[in-house]
Amino acid sequence: HTYRNNNHTNNKHINNNTHNNTKTNKNKDNDNDNDDNKNNDNDNDDNLASVFVSDAQFNRNIFFDSSPQAVRLYMLYNHWGLQVTLYIFILVDLSLALFEEPAVLPLPLWATMSVELLCVVVFMARLVHYAKVIPRDKFWKDPKNLSLLFQLTLLDMLIYGSLRALDCSGVRWSRVFRPLLLVNITEGRRLRQAFRSIRNALPQILLVFLLFIFSILIFSLMALKLFSKRGLRTTDGAPYFTNFLQIVFDLYVLVTTANSPDVMMPAYNSSSIFSIFFIIFILVNVYIFMSVFLAVVYNNYKKHLKEEVRQLVRAKRHKMARAFAVLQQKSGEGAEPVVTHDRWSRLVRRVRPDISHAHKELLWSVCDPEEKGVIGKLAFVQLADLLNIEVITVKQRPHPLQNLCPALYLSKPSRLLSSIVQHRGFVILFDLIILANAVFIALDEENPLISNSEWFFLVVYLLEILLKLYVHEPRGFFSRHNFWNWFDTIIVVAALIATIVNSALKSSSGYTSRQVLDIVFILRVLRLIRVVDSIDRFRAIINTLIRIGPAILTFGQLILVVYYIFAMVGMELFQGRVQFFGPDSEAPERVYCGNPLLKDTAFARHNYCKNNFNQVVASFVLLLELTVVNQCSGFSLTTHPAARLYFLLFHITVVIIIINIFVAFVLEAFFVEYSVEKSDLQNSVEKKIEELQLGVKQEKLEQNLVNSMETMDSENGPKKRPALLFKIASRRYRTVDALIQRMFENDLNPEDFNEDETNGNFSNPTFNL
Amino acid sequence: HTYRNNNHTNNKHINNNTHNNTKTNKNKDNDNDNDDNKNNDNDNDDNLASVFVSDAQFNRNIFFDSSPQAVRLYMLYNHWGLQVTLYIFILVDLSLALFEEPAVLPLPLWATMSVELLCVVVFMARLVHYAKVIPRDKFWKDPKNLSLLFQLTLLDMLIYGSLRALDCSGVRWSRVFRPLLLVNITEGRRLRQAFRSIRNALPQILLVFLLFIFSILIFSLMALKLFSKRGLRTTDGAPYFTNFLQIVFDLYVLVTTANSPDVMMPAYNSSSIFSIFFIIFILVNVYIFMSVFLAVVYNNYKKHLKEEVRQLVRAKRHKMARAFAVLQQKSGEGAEPVVTHDRWSRLVRRVRPDISHAHKELLWSVCDPEEKGVIGKLAFVQLADLLNIEVITVKQRPHPLQNLCPALYLSKPSRLLSSIVQHRGFVILFDLIILANAVFIALDEENPLISNSEWFFLVVYLLEILLKLYVHEPRGFFSRHNFWNWFDTIIVVAALIATIVNSALKSSSGYTSRQVLDIVFILRVLRLIRVVDSIDRFRAIINTLIRIGPAILTFGQLILVVYYIFAMVGMELFQGRVQFFGPDSEAPERVYCGNPLLKDTAFARHNYCKNNFNQVVASFVLLLELTVVNQCSGFSLTTHPAARLYFLLFHITVVIIIINIFVAFVLEAFFVEYSVEKSDLQNSVEKKIEELQLGVKQEKLEQNLVNSMETMDSENGPKKRPALLFKIASRRYRTVDALIQRMFENDLNPEDFNEDETNGNFSNPTFNL
Repeated sequence: HTYRNNNHTNNKHINNNTHNNTKTNKNKDNDNDNDDNKNNDNDNDDNLASVFVSDAQFNRNIFFDSSPQAVRLYMLYNHWGLQVTLYIFILVDLSLALFEEPAVLPLPLWATMSVELLCVVVFMARLVHYAKVIPRDKFWKDPKNLSLLFQLTLLDMLIYGSLRALDCSGVRWSRVFRPLLLVNITEGRRLRQAFRSIRNALPQILLVFLLFIFSILIFSLMALKLFSKRGLRTTDGAPYFTNFLQIVFDLYVLVTTANSPDVMMPAYNSSSIFSIFFIIFILVNVYIFMSVFLAVVYNNYKKHLKEEVRQLVRAKRHKMARAFAVLQQKSGEGAEPVVTHDRWSRLVRRVRPDISHAHKELLWSVCDPEEKGVIGKLAFVQLADLLNIEVITVKQRPHPLQNLCPALYLSKPSRLLSSIVQHRGFVILFDLIILANAVFIALDEENPLISNSEWFFLVVYLLEILLKLYVHEPRGFFSRHNFWNWFDTIIVVAALIATIVNSALKSSSGYTSRQVLDIVFILRVLRLIRVVDSIDRFRAIINTLIRIGPAILTFGQLILVVYYIFAMVGMELFQGRVQFFGPDSEAPERVYCGNPLLKDTAFARHNYCKNNFNQVVASFVLLLELTVVNQCSGFSLTTHPAARLYFLLFHITVVIIIINIFVAFVLEAFFVEYSVEKSDLQNSVEKKIEELQLGVKQEKLEQNLVNSMETMDSENGPKKRPALLFKIASRRYRTVDALIQRMFENDLNPEDFNEDETNGNFSNPTFNL
Repeated sequence: HTYRNNNHTNNKHINNNTHNNTKTNKNKDNDNDNDDNKNNDNDNDDNLASVFVSDAQFNRNIFFDSSPQAVRLYMLYNHWGLQVTLYIFILVDLSLALFEEPAVLPLPLWATMSVELLCVVVFMARLVHYAKVIPRDKFWKDPKNLSLLFQLTLLDMLIYGSLRALDCSGVRWSRVFRPLLLVNITEGRRLRQAFRSIRNALPQILLVFLLFIFSILIFSLMALKLFSKRGLRTTDGAPYFTNFLQIVFDLYVLVTTANSPDVMMPAYNSSSIFSIFFIIFILVNVYIFMSVFLAVVYNNYKKHLKEEVRQLVRAKRHKMARAFAVLQQKSGEGAEPVVTHDRWSRLVRRVRPDISHAHKELLWSVCDPEEKGVIGKLAFVQLADLLNIEVITVKQRPHPLQNLCPALYLSKPSRLLSSIVQHRGFVILFDLIILANAVFIALDEENPLISNSEWFFLVVYLLEILLKLYVHEPRGFFSRHNFWNWFDTIIVVAALIATIVNSALKSSSGYTSRQVLDIVFILRVLRLIRVVDSIDRFRAIINTLIRIGPAILTFGQLILVVYYIFAMVGMELFQGRVQFFGPDSEAPERVYCGNPLLKDTAFARHNYCKNNFNQVVASFVLLLELTVVNQCSGFSLTTHPAARLYFLLFHITVVIIIINIFVAFVLEAFFVEYSVEKSDLQNSVEKKIEELQLGVKQEKLEQNLVNSMETMDSENGPKKRPALLFKIASRRYRTVDALIQRMFENDLNPEDFNEDETNGNFSNPTFNL
């Protein structure tokens, strides 16, 4: 048992935890006590190792206490159920904005307040759980901001509640902080990372921004001198370019292209020469400065992301090294510590209970190519990455019909049918049918021929799915990675149900539900998207887009946080300034959005009344419009010219910073995609699969930019094959982290452990941006 | 003389030119004829070598005949005077559009026709000159398109002239081809390269574009089904989303953000749910697809540029190798051929007569670090790059006043003044004065205090320049690389002159010229820009922008070509459809731009009448506006809905392709800038300068992102120094080619000659896109 204790000490030594050191001593004393204790100990070790491995696998960086209870609590903390619950409560907390004043659906104050209280209690419980998991001193150092958030929320609720009880008006200012929950929870690592990279890029962006503002000020001054004395008037009859601040704002808006060419027309109408001023302005500020912003944001984003990934990979290796320390055995004095196959496979079973035995043995044979039965540290450390590679185990099951009635299924006509369905022409035929369907959809619905044709197309599509199911093994057909099969089936079945419901409604009551009809229409059109899948080159682009989808979700969260904050502030500032009257309303205020200040303005004339901050949904839609083009005249007119500051700030935050980071991310993802080589590790698994002759059509996999299962299915017919095949899952299903890591992996040395350094480097989430 | 003939044969062998081979034989026969002949021969060799070197230096790839007469003609062909003349005539040819129908300044047909004829004759002469320079067979293979251009032009002129003589109307269709001259002349290499990289990126762009169009079609179909039956109306009262083609166009324009949020308002007003449709549309088509376009364009641009640069570098090395072959001497049998210092320096004197003897010796000591007196091929080949590095020879001249009156200039008060002017506080003081000036400019001009303050500021600025001239040596102060000194002086002197003229006009006739006043205002504001230069971090950004300026000019030409073609087509299609009536016009047609079809449209209401195709200047301004946002409703209304195709095509060409390439270029240039390391070759020169202890404050040079001369000037005072110093010129003055080559230089092996391959690789410009 020497090595066991040895590695225990080793492990505890890394933790520098006195409490555990005494425990180790105790373990030493009880060494030969009984088998039960030993089993228990073994179990604890396995727990600890599996926690390290799954932390490494999912890049969780939590410095947890390594006592057995804490480890068990930590495993519970990472349970997906608790995480989903947390996210649901965050969602509930955020969606309270729908029911609070100004509400979409007003609820009494006590109801929203008690729901919010419940949410805070849940978050607090999660925080207490977290406190139990990590060492006490670490806890008090870090998550102070999170509890501060709760204290502020409770304080605000108290103040607001008492103000309302006294019939005073109050402001629920803590609502602004709500989306920060998304950032500050343990699971918000990627979001924190995104915020960090923005913060790191800020000094550089600020520099360019100051220069950009300087340029706008210089142009504004020039415009003031050139145009103010000419007595020009805008289309609205207002004096043109006479107020310096107004000019600055107008020229800034011109950069967003929202008021082009209106802002230029009065000067241009007075003399063509003045167009030179605007041409130079647009060239310098719209094209050059905006490109420079993108360049600066992109460059900084890339630089800091690289650093983050480097630390992430270091931390991952460090965690794997710790797991190794827990499991290692020394075969003799001076020999390198190793992990046996037995312990390794127990570990893998714990970390990923879902993977098959065959898959596990495949991974082992990658780690231990020389079949020594034990693996060293270097081979062990790559396990986290190996587990992240999705290897699909393809079971060669015969078709169920073949089992039921082999004579019929293997008969000549049945085989002919199979070969027809698998023929390239079958796909082309259905693409043509889809195109015909598109034409029919575009034609007038009123024509009975057209509306009845829908039934024909539905039947044809159903037939197609049934034929495919006849030929392919159903469980294979609906396996997790067959995106387009799922897509097809769901759309067709949903369309069938919706069409039947619609007809039933129509024939029973003679009344067509608009909602049902809308759904039917949308489903019909969505069916057409399938055409893209049958053109290889399109599929490659689409798959790249689908693959960067999860990463785009991170940006979705980022945008959500920023939009939410701006929506809350905007609602406090501009609520009720602009009123929307329904299209059927006869109110005379309708033509000026319920605010006399808007009489005869472009805002009212364009019918923008629904672009307001009166409730949270409208605010979000308005903010989206502001992201596209900056239209805010209505709000500065109805409140104060200083209201423009809000819109300027929004533009700077969202368009100049976040959208540019988004573009930078898409650019980087596509560049990674274009340099098609797969990562080394993936190659090692593939090589092993090929070596063992268990691969699925390797040459086909390499042809496509993206290896999708669909190509394989058609080969999956009633031919003789080994019963079990492996295949590297399409890269589209890999995690976002893997994609980002792969972006910069080439720069990292695989041998780089450097434990002394990493030991300090990996810490709990800091909980502040 | 063995080696001489040897290399002659070698050289001619490369040319594979039988004509020259016979000449070589003749040379051999006349070997010992007389000294005169030999001198002549020597001269011819020097000519040939210098032509190769300057071709390599400026990356000219013309396969010229190497006979002495042809070489001399070729040197004439490359003479800057002829090139400038050519560009002037191209400019004249292009600007004919100002005077032809529809004209800004109408000229009679015979005048424009004869000018155009003159231009064609000049171009033909240049072509004939070119034909004399290159081998006949090469000529007939290549520039057929260019002469085709002339034939078409002449044909068109003939047809149009005779039609007009018969009082028929004709179309000057050959005007569309005029800008192609810019592309097809020998000097248009960079422009051809830009067009080539666009053409190479086209297949990839097309693929994404098809997918993008597919997405728009799907969304349009969905919009048709969802909205057409709802009876919605736009703000103009027109039915909303009922015509499929109209929907497609509206949604395409939404991608350009021109009609956001107007296109969404009717649906959004009818139900908030419909905003989801537009949000998804904007997300997919505006943000994701536009980013993908940028990614595809950027990636392809980079890839093909890399290939181009690789070929360029190969061709350059090949040309240098040929120059070496001409000049080489063998010191013995089996020894490596070398070039002596004597021949080398004769060559450099021919190629760059402007550089000083000291500079030449510096270059030689870089090539021949071991002072052997001869250099081999590898050292010789880098000469082209060495010549491109601008080394500034700083002459330590004493101040002229010191010569005139040393006692006074070196007296204590004078030295105190010098140290004050060179103090950091002096710069800060003048920055504060400039800021105060900015405030005064913004204030009202009518106030006599304010308008008189202008004189004070002018005097202060003049005083500053005079003080600086007192301290710094004037020739050093106004040396070629001191951008900001030049800028300051020109602006201040021009402002002084303009202000004096203005005052003189005012006092003599009591009348202020608006034009003069405008110039005064602009100059005043421009003076403020100087502030940027005194903040180091801003200067770095500005200098990067100035450095990529010349490359941006290539894009300027590209834009000019595309705009010109679109303007010519647009003028034929839409001329006279929209009329502009001056602001003082009382014509009733004014409110609807002279076209009853535009009555009560947004186009007329916004006063866009001057946005028309009635003459070439207005067309260019309109096309610029279309580049920013796509406003074209007026033209489809007054002609035919199909007119939108023109605007779609323009958007695809300019915004999706060219602007993206422009952004890609700026991104790439900034990334190169951020990876600050200098190219190896530049380092070798710098190292040598340092070795010889002739460097100018090396440590200061490395601190700044961009090494500008200004920092040095302040040190250039009356201290003891070596009489001659060298300095690598600020990188901003390097050629565009150098910048582009540097982008990809790291991937190229400096030893890679591979003459067999390059021999075929480098060819005459192909003259077709």
